[in-house]
Amino acid sequence: MEDEDLKSAINVAWVLLCTALVFWEQAGFAMWEAGCLRSTSLHSILLKNMCDAAIGAAAFFTLGYAIGFGGGADHKFAGNDKFFLKACAARLHNPAPPPFALPAALGVAIDDYHIVFFQWAFAATAATTVSGCMAERTQFAGYLIYSFFVTAFIYAVPLHWLWADAGWLCAWGDNAAFGYGMIDFAGSGIVHMLGGAAGLVGSYVVGPRAGRFTDKGPVQIEGHSIALTTLGVYCLWFGWFGFNAGYTLGTTGGMWKTAALICVNTTISPSASILSVLLLEKFLAGYYDTSKCMNGIVAGLVGITGPCGVVEPYAAAIIGIVSGAVYCG
Amino acid sequence: MEDEDLKSAINVAWVLLCTALVFWEQAGFAMWEAGCLRSTSLHSILLKNMCDAAIGAAAFFTLGYAIGFGGGADHKFAGNDKFFLKACAARLHNPAPPPFALPAALGVAIDDYHIVFFQWAFAATAATTVSGCMAERTQFAGYLIYSFFVTAFIYAVPLHWLWADAGWLCAWGDNAAFGYGMIDFAGSGIVHMLGGAAGLVGSYVVGPRAGRFTDKGPVQIEGHSIALTTLGVYCLWFGWFGFNAGYTLGTTGGMWKTAALICVNTTISPSASILSVLLLEKFLAGYYDTSKCMNGIVAGLVGITGPCGVVEPYAAAIIGIVSGAVYCG
Amino acid sequence: MEDEDLKSAINVAWVLLCTALVFWEQAGFAMWEAGCLRSTSLHSILLKNMCDAAIGAAAFFTLGYAIGFGGGADHKFAGNDKFFLKACAARLHNPAPPPFALPAALGVAIDDYHIVFFQWAFAATAATTVSGCMAERTQFAGYLIYSFFVTAFIYAVPLHWLWADAGWLCAWGDNAAFGYGMIDFAGSGIVHMLGGAAGLVGSYVVGPRAGRFTDKGPVQIEGHSIALTTLGVYCLWFGWFGFNAGYTLGTTGGMWKTAALICVNTTISPSASILSVLLLEKFLAGYYDTSKCMNGIVAGLVGITGPCGVVEPYAAAIIGIVSGAVYCG
Repeated sequence: MEDEDLKSAINVAWVLLCTALVFWEQAGFAMWEAGCLRSTSLHSILLKNMCDAAIGAAAFFTLGYAIGFGGGADHKFAGNDKFFLKACAARLHNPAPPPFALPAALGVAIDDYHIVFFQWAFAATAATTVSGCMAERTQFAGYLIYSFFVTAFIYAVPLHWLWADAGWLCAWGDNAAFGYGMIDFAGSGIVHMLGGAAGLVGSYVVGPRAGRFTDKGPVQIEGHSIALTTLGVYCLWFGWFGFNAGYTLGTTGGMWKTAALICVNTTISPSASILSVLLLEKFLAGYYDTSKCMNGIVAGLVGITGPCGVVEPYAAAIIGIVSGAVYCG
Repeated sequence: MEDEDLKSAINVAWVLLCTALVFWEQAGFAMWEAGCLRSTSLHSILLKNMCDAAIGAAAFFTLGYAIGFGGGADHKFAGNDKFFLKACAARLHNPAPPPFALPAALGVAIDDYHIVFFQWAFAATAATTVSGCMAERTQFAGYLIYSFFVTAFIYAVPLHWLWADAGWLCAWGDNAAFGYGMIDFAGSGIVHMLGGAAGLVGSYVVGPRAGRFTDKGPVQIEGHSIALTTLGVYCLWFGWFGFNAGYTLGTTGGMWKTAALICVNTTISPSASILSVLLLEKFLAGYYDTSKCMNGIVAGLVGITGPCGVVEPYAAAIIGIVSGAVYCG
Repeated sequence: MEDEDLKSAINVAWVLLCTALVFWEQAGFAMWEAGCLRSTSLHSILLKNMCDAAIGAAAFFTLGYAIGFGGGADHKFAGNDKFFLKACAARLHNPAPPPFALPAALGVAIDDYHIVFFQWAFAATAATTVSGCMAERTQFAGYLIYSFFVTAFIYAVPLHWLWADAGWLCAWGDNAAFGYGMIDFAGSGIVHMLGGAAGLVGSYVVGPRAGRFTDKGPVQIEGHSIALTTLGVYCLWFGWFGFNAGYTLGTTGGMWKTAALICVNTTISPSASILSVLLLEKFLAGYYDTSKCMNGIVAGLVGITGPCGVVEPYAAAIIGIVSGAVYCG
């Protein structure tokens, strides 16, 4: 009992602090996008990004979490309970025994809220990816509804397939210790692919930004503030340590080794990526474009997210170099 | 002994990391205020905010901590020892026994410094709230003296009433395990009410900002940078996770459950608040004001601070909606 | 075994989270320097800073770590193995036994990667210090090569002398528990002195900034954005908590006491420093210069870095006051 409590104390603290870092990526996306866009779009893009966190919470806590993680062993497609976080809150009336006396005495009994919190930050990140794709292109109210729908359904249903124990894509029925398939370790597929796909569909529907395409072909739209862009990229990198390493869901049971490896890989891949972009820029264009290099960091981060816990550092370097090259291409 | 050490290792690490997040709120307040004010006030407001942390340290470490937490069981009004952190430092001459051999061997013996650190960050937050209220209105030297006085006395005396074991408002004489009354959980009353009240009194004394009131009534003063304001709000939200969850003072003994609940509530309330502001804006004004929405986030954060550890998520949503509506009103 | 795992879980989590904070100093240096320079240099200084982290990773992971920490007991001058992190990666073929079953099953066995990660963040900080000194003065490609060289050799060789068990300057051959000399606790000498010295040499070689010296003597170059400078200083202070406190390498075994003391000292010294700068400014110049005050914070942080774990708070205050006065002089 004592030992279980110590383990939970360590692991929940780890998850909560990492989730705070993941939340910080929201600031990163906001600043990155704000810096990359024309200053006339500043108000709308900042408001959209802030609303992503809020809409993400509304959609995920009411529906998304239930669809993603609810349901018993026979729900292979989508969960069907825990709506409005009900299963968690229900425990209020059945308080935990001592030694958890204090929360119980206060009428509070909580269980997997740290997982709820962590998953919300992931869902909000996916929602924000969409917002970047649709920047300068949509009506605000329409965007909010779209964002709610994406978080509650488009994101949550595949989440159930892959990560819920009962999901039909989850190959690890027996890894009950972690409850997650390890192949899509920190959600490269779920968060980024889905976010990107939803953004692409959205972009297609709403059409290009005003002034992006003229009779003479596409026009490169200059960002208005490289300082904001850079700040955003730093925020993203900082937060990404939490995003990737937090996915261990704790550091006990030797997972501290994996967490440390992940942090090293999350350092190496974006570093290799920006150096690869620098070299390609130098040889192809003859000069360095600061924005492109910054985006190289983000490409390296996205590239390492999926395999971060299962590759060695030299492989992370290769992934980074390839990510940078693909971005340039 | 071994177990005690592990528990302290977990809990102190938790408090120190959360306190670093609370410190980050200082950056949040500085950016938020800088963005909301006219650019002519930029230098002065940034310097004021940075000095709040410094003056807060000077006032709190010399006097405030002693007044707030010093004194024995018979000091119901204010503490009267631990000035200049003396009681802590005194242990230097009486070093701790092994297994704390290393610090002892180095001539260093430390005790409740993590609490000192945590409380400083709270005191500095209260001081900063005042600075926001008095922006663009005061002489710099006068402001510093006022800020010192607020931290050392106005803030510390009620702190003693409420949170010190001997304080006359502290209903939990027997909760020696935590040493804090749980009703004002993360200091909504102490930090925000007092900070706000001190700011209001200060504002009254120094009068309105130049150009705020004309013959034709109050003039809305436009902020100069929505990017800074938004960045500030992100910093505040990020830091607020530390502010609220850090107040568990540790995650062992089942407090990890409370910490996780707090993080979820600290997500839900500001989210609900900004959505409530959005809806009200839409129906009352017909358009969205980005600054107001950002302030809605802060209103939701302030609203949830007090009850964050003792309410269920649905209640956090209601608190957020009400906070947003009150802010709009 | 169980207990060892719990300790590692706590200590590695601590080191990884502190290292993330140290990484955040990169953002701080970038914003600080961006704010202090002319806006025409903005692109180049931001790109340089971002590349410091990347080049630092390339140089440190391929050569620097090996030179700094490789080698057996008979290598007093420099290490000669662990190039390309080989010694760590080599363990892949000799996987750890259960209970670390999961990483082993995945073909991953990792050891001291959290130390690698932590040391990288330190090396990158040293590299960044150089970049600040050489701002507005160098060719980009030349700077990158210089930065690689500094991280891989100029930084790593004295690192070996001081911190590796076998180093000839390391007085603590017997403190195997920590493996580090405690006198240069958080690397004041290594990181800042070396960084500064390398920067000075570099500055001398490349000459002054264009427009800095005219026939009429030196010209004060105005920074272009006080908001960025201030943000940068907040980032630095926030990250410095991780820089100093992370150097405990864990919180078990009573090191939580040292970590807490360090956080208090890292609060007091910059606070005392800025107040000392304020007073000197007031009496010498008659007005407050916001940039100078901000730099006073940095001076206080640099001053406390070396002794942060071995002095009492009152001494930290004195160190801060002296640092501020020295900076003004």
